[in-house]
Amino acid sequence: MKIILAPDKFKSCLTAPEFCRIAEQAFREELPDAELVCLPLADGGDGTTRALAAATGAELHTIAVRGPLGKTVTAEFAFDPVTRNGIFETASASGLALLSRNGLNPMKATTFGTGEVLKKLLDLGAATITLGIGGSATIDGGAGMAKALGVRFLDHAGNELPADPGSLNVLGSIDTSRTDPRLKKTRILVACDVNSPLLGKDGAARVFGPQKGATPEMIGQLEKTLARLAGIWKKQGLIDRVDRPGDGASGGLGAGLRAFCGAELHPGAQFIMKMLHFEEHLKDAAFVITGEGNADSQTGRGKLCSEIAKVSRSHQVPVILIAGALTAEEGGKGLTAFHRTFDCAFSISPGPENLDSAKANAPGNLFFMCKNLARLIAESGGRRRNDL
Amino acid sequence: MKIILAPDKFKSCLTAPEFCRIAEQAFREELPDAELVCLPLADGGDGTTRALAAATGAELHTIAVRGPLGKTVTAEFAFDPVTRNGIFETASASGLALLSRNGLNPMKATTFGTGEVLKKLLDLGAATITLGIGGSATIDGGAGMAKALGVRFLDHAGNELPADPGSLNVLGSIDTSRTDPRLKKTRILVACDVNSPLLGKDGAARVFGPQKGATPEMIGQLEKTLARLAGIWKKQGLIDRVDRPGDGASGGLGAGLRAFCGAELHPGAQFIMKMLHFEEHLKDAAFVITGEGNADSQTGRGKLCSEIAKVSRSHQVPVILIAGALTAEEGGKGLTAFHRTFDCAFSISPGPENLDSAKANAPGNLFFMCKNLARLIAESGGRRRNDL
Repeated sequence: MKIILAPDKFKSCLTAPEFCRIAEQAFREELPDAELVCLPLADGGDGTTRALAAATGAELHTIAVRGPLGKTVTAEFAFDPVTRNGIFETASASGLALLSRNGLNPMKATTFGTGEVLKKLLDLGAATITLGIGGSATIDGGAGMAKALGVRFLDHAGNELPADPGSLNVLGSIDTSRTDPRLKKTRILVACDVNSPLLGKDGAARVFGPQKGATPEMIGQLEKTLARLAGIWKKQGLIDRVDRPGDGASGGLGAGLRAFCGAELHPGAQFIMKMLHFEEHLKDAAFVITGEGNADSQTGRGKLCSEIAKVSRSHQVPVILIAGALTAEEGGKGLTAFHRTFDCAFSISPGPENLDSAKANAPGNLFFMCKNLARLIAESGGRRRNDL
Repeated sequence: MKIILAPDKFKSCLTAPEFCRIAEQAFREELPDAELVCLPLADGGDGTTRALAAATGAELHTIAVRGPLGKTVTAEFAFDPVTRNGIFETASASGLALLSRNGLNPMKATTFGTGEVLKKLLDLGAATITLGIGGSATIDGGAGMAKALGVRFLDHAGNELPADPGSLNVLGSIDTSRTDPRLKKTRILVACDVNSPLLGKDGAARVFGPQKGATPEMIGQLEKTLARLAGIWKKQGLIDRVDRPGDGASGGLGAGLRAFCGAELHPGAQFIMKMLHFEEHLKDAAFVITGEGNADSQTGRGKLCSEIAKVSRSHQVPVILIAGALTAEEGGKGLTAFHRTFDCAFSISPGPENLDSAKANAPGNLFFMCKNLARLIAESGGRRRNDL
């Protein structure tokens, strides 16, 4: 019996590889003959590097880079010297989680650190870089990233500007003549956690500004600066549009990676499933176990677990969702809506409790739930256990 | 595939028959070919009448009787005119749940109403009475019950006393000459929810007094009165000992039923399982589903669900516990202790929430959990559903 463990993370609680480790042990104990395939997932945001590194066997490295507001942070990336594939998530160098809730400043935050990591991967000889973008603290259109790779931002008088959104409101032109030449020979594949365009009501500033600390006034300024940047990209022939899905991901880093690095943008969930050869693993699988911290029956559509379910069930493989919490409209009555997407949906919660206790107990609760499921699968399949 | 639904109640939330109804519908929807056997359980306390009536097909009736403190209450009992079996739970006439938390008074509360229901069953021509005792507000040694059936309690001067514990401290003798004569021809089988003796540190006053509103001083008085009653039983040859298991059940009603009515006491859980022919139903069963509101991994031993599990597993039938809450020592880590008793143990909780919300959503949450389990059983057994 082949069981695929393909969870998303439980946000601020369990990483996807941690979920896999716990679930694997539980299933191993109860179904010792089962083939267990661990495919921790991510969508481009937090956890992408580790998920892809685990799946491809690339080695993890760390590097000190400039954080979103200048303070040095330790970013993590992965590199496989054989395939020369580099893996990196922008959240690790320029992420929201690196700043305190009160320390956000989207007018000053930049993706410079992300550019530094890309440079490091070029130094290592990367032929391909797989970059997850999502969860950034920035709305700089990738200007900081570009600056780290040699791009210069100039005002109308030709003076170089800092690459933060607060300074780029007087941007006159972009000098790409000193851009790191190795970029041209490197394929950059980007997994975007959202499919937003750069500008407008669904764009990087308006939709994601508030969670990055932008006031309504700042959102107006950021929108203008991104529009100015886009105008110059078009004028200088770098890219001719900024409404491709993912252009608005990570505060416009998506569009910036296209403009400055010739990157290809992909929807995160599907892209990463492809990287992990998810569909090939489905062959002969008896079950797929997926999971996420907070599952919502209504808005599940684009999310990672729903994608997993869609693909798995199209291959006739049943999918079990294990969530920290299942949230449905109308309380208990609405829960059956989860069965439209998943064959089964379980919460690891052992009873009424508060969120802090739920988070603290999540590893044990998950382990117990997996043991339960494995035991039930064994009993139902006629594999009566020895201890009965 | 035969599945037995044999739950206890979810206290102050779902009755055992309600659990069965919800679970049956869920399993029916997902496993339309399964044979579902509903055996709602009880241990002698609340829910016993309905559980046994449902299992035996006896008709439910109500009767107005004197409540534990004199106020009229509507008690429920069941009677089968064919087998002439009467069914009744003392909680319905003399129960703790009939009084407000502040209205308890164990020095005055009596089982008179229980006696009135027994009388009614004698009027109906009962050949056997199955009586569940547990959950009473009384510590009267069954004196009230006996008075309703013609027994007279006298002081040393031969004056009749009220049958409450506050008055019986001057009890001198018991006059049984006017006891309802039909009792002699009626077999009374008693299901006791606890196996306590009448007196002493494990007895009716010391262990159960506090939850019935007794102060430490009252406990001392109640213990003395019960001892006085026991002394007179022995002296007059009614019964010769008061340390049989169940003598202390329902405030000594167990011993009182033996002394005044020649009743047989039985441990509630096993007795009711026998009444329901539980072991015979186990034949060819694929699963037993049991359930209770609050399951504790440590103290599960004597409880109903644990008895169900013990018997079922001795017949190689796996048992799934569905609880409102699973409580374990050391939080999540301790949960696997449930697997010592049950094959699987699930909480219906869909995530962190407060107790009120959990209770309000219990029907929907239970329904969803049963659907999940049925779907997983179906998938694991190779019965791929049509909608996949």
